[in-house]
Amino acid sequence: MGTGQGVIELVERMLASDTLALPRLISLVEGESEAVADIMRRIGPHTGRAYCIGVTGPPGTGKSTVVDKLTAIMREKELSVGIVAVDPSSPFSGGALLGDRIRMQQHYLDSGVFIRSMATRGSHGGLPVTVQGVIKLLDASGRDVILVETVGVGQTELDVVNAADIVIVVLTPESGDAIQAMKAGLFEIADIFAINKADREGASRMKAELEAFVAMKPGEPIPVVLTQAHRGIAIDELYEELERRRRIQEENGELERRRRQRRREEFLEMLQRKVRTRFLDFAEKDGQLKDLAERVVAGELDPYSACAQVLDDRQWLGKWLTQGE
Amino acid sequence: MGTGQGVIELVERMLASDTLALPRLISLVEGESEAVADIMRRIGPHTGRAYCIGVTGPPGTGKSTVVDKLTAIMREKELSVGIVAVDPSSPFSGGALLGDRIRMQQHYLDSGVFIRSMATRGSHGGLPVTVQGVIKLLDASGRDVILVETVGVGQTELDVVNAADIVIVVLTPESGDAIQAMKAGLFEIADIFAINKADREGASRMKAELEAFVAMKPGEPIPVVLTQAHRGIAIDELYEELERRRRIQEENGELERRRRQRRREEFLEMLQRKVRTRFLDFAEKDGQLKDLAERVVAGELDPYSACAQVLDDRQWLGKWLTQGE
Repeated sequence: MGTGQGVIELVERMLASDTLALPRLISLVEGESEAVADIMRRIGPHTGRAYCIGVTGPPGTGKSTVVDKLTAIMREKELSVGIVAVDPSSPFSGGALLGDRIRMQQHYLDSGVFIRSMATRGSHGGLPVTVQGVIKLLDASGRDVILVETVGVGQTELDVVNAADIVIVVLTPESGDAIQAMKAGLFEIADIFAINKADREGASRMKAELEAFVAMKPGEPIPVVLTQAHRGIAIDELYEELERRRRIQEENGELERRRRQRRREEFLEMLQRKVRTRFLDFAEKDGQLKDLAERVVAGELDPYSACAQVLDDRQWLGKWLTQGE
Repeated sequence: MGTGQGVIELVERMLASDTLALPRLISLVEGESEAVADIMRRIGPHTGRAYCIGVTGPPGTGKSTVVDKLTAIMREKELSVGIVAVDPSSPFSGGALLGDRIRMQQHYLDSGVFIRSMATRGSHGGLPVTVQGVIKLLDASGRDVILVETVGVGQTELDVVNAADIVIVVLTPESGDAIQAMKAGLFEIADIFAINKADREGASRMKAELEAFVAMKPGEPIPVVLTQAHRGIAIDELYEELERRRRIQEENGELERRRRQRRREEFLEMLQRKVRTRFLDFAEKDGQLKDLAERVVAGELDPYSACAQVLDDRQWLGKWLTQGE
């Protein structure tokens, strides 16, 4: 679908709460359709109302269950919820992930909850931008809260949750979790820690250690909540911490500061990606570049020298700007 | 250090087996020094002799120990070894990783083994290119074998080991490992599976399952070896599989095909990164772009429209080509 009447109508239907329009628009954004720019321009004025919560942590800590139980509390409070689950899926993993999602079944039947899974595999770095596009659609569609859940702790997942208004890092009392989370840089982006499966040994010691750690950081202390999501224990406490932090963020301007920062990063990232795409399109077609690549592939020329040849030739580089898109 | 006499001398000293020159050149490559292109041009004719083995898998499967024990076998055969350990390190993790490395201590005292750790954090996607640069230096310095070990299973780690001549995926009999490896796409790049800690329950069942899985793939069957690296059990078998696969790769042209493919990818990736860097340098300085970014940050303009404004203005885009570097 190109830009035009179809998209305008879809956006209008979504804004009028047509439940079929939202998933279709999401698919366009995920597929990096040409219509994306038009969609975003049109929904822009309707965004900025939803509060976006990132939930991350090592695999197996129970993030899906935490998201599930938080959703139940939000629904009791009559908040509408959007859930974006970012999964490092592969052709083989469909089953396993589906299993995780089955617990969410109750919410599948609730029109106040919209759930969408997105794959990290094969996204080559563009995923954070795409997830942000999907978050904006959910925002414009009138969701009060958006939960973004990641599986795994790579750079992509870090970029994804970093774009949230607040980040919950979910760990279990197993010490390996904390080390993995720390290595992955999650300690630096956590606004709230949930030590889930807190009935396991070591939970209170881990809480004490985390609290000692967060005490070293300047600013508002980071809460550490002991939860048992599968039993629904202390999820209300986690929700209260979320609410409390949100109030603080709104009062001290932190929320607006984060959102401005996010918009800046999103713009520069998108611009880079577009410059890169245009360049690659050119590289596909340009005979001179192909010849150069062949010499590199044959081992006759090192890639550094080949790059220098391309970049020193301003006339050559200029060619791709006057082509493409 | 700029390009010039210093670098020429360093490269010559490295080629003459001066043990102090190699780490200094590696630091230049890691720091993305201006001298990198010159270094690579000079070492180019001396590369292509080393065989590069990638070792990957989920955290905690014992990859370091596997690398350690393989190194011991290679040293017995009087092969010189280079080890590149790619760690997702953060300021906090120094201790934990050092612990992993302490087992390698015996090799630290062996001049036939060169060990270097490289951090993934903060590399913003440039790591695979840098690791390849380091591999080339080790290759040119005369190492017979280079072992590249990754911690974690993100896209960066996948790109890193994908550049090896052969890839060993290390799992343990815990089923979570296989699922994590599968999700991360490791099954698609594995040339050999090692089920390590094979004294644990479920090892032989996992071997049967993996063998059933690999039987579905076309081509040479992928070996599955049960190892207990910490006890040195079946590492010789793993080494024999490595040797056997290498002979097959050399005979059927697979090795050359992979290396050509790697050179192509490396060149295009490098070129893209350089185009991007030049663009970012320009974006830093350009007042018109800054104004546009401010409007995006303030929420007055959506990033898609802002990108379109930049990319549609060929005169504007042309400016950055005539500036920079």
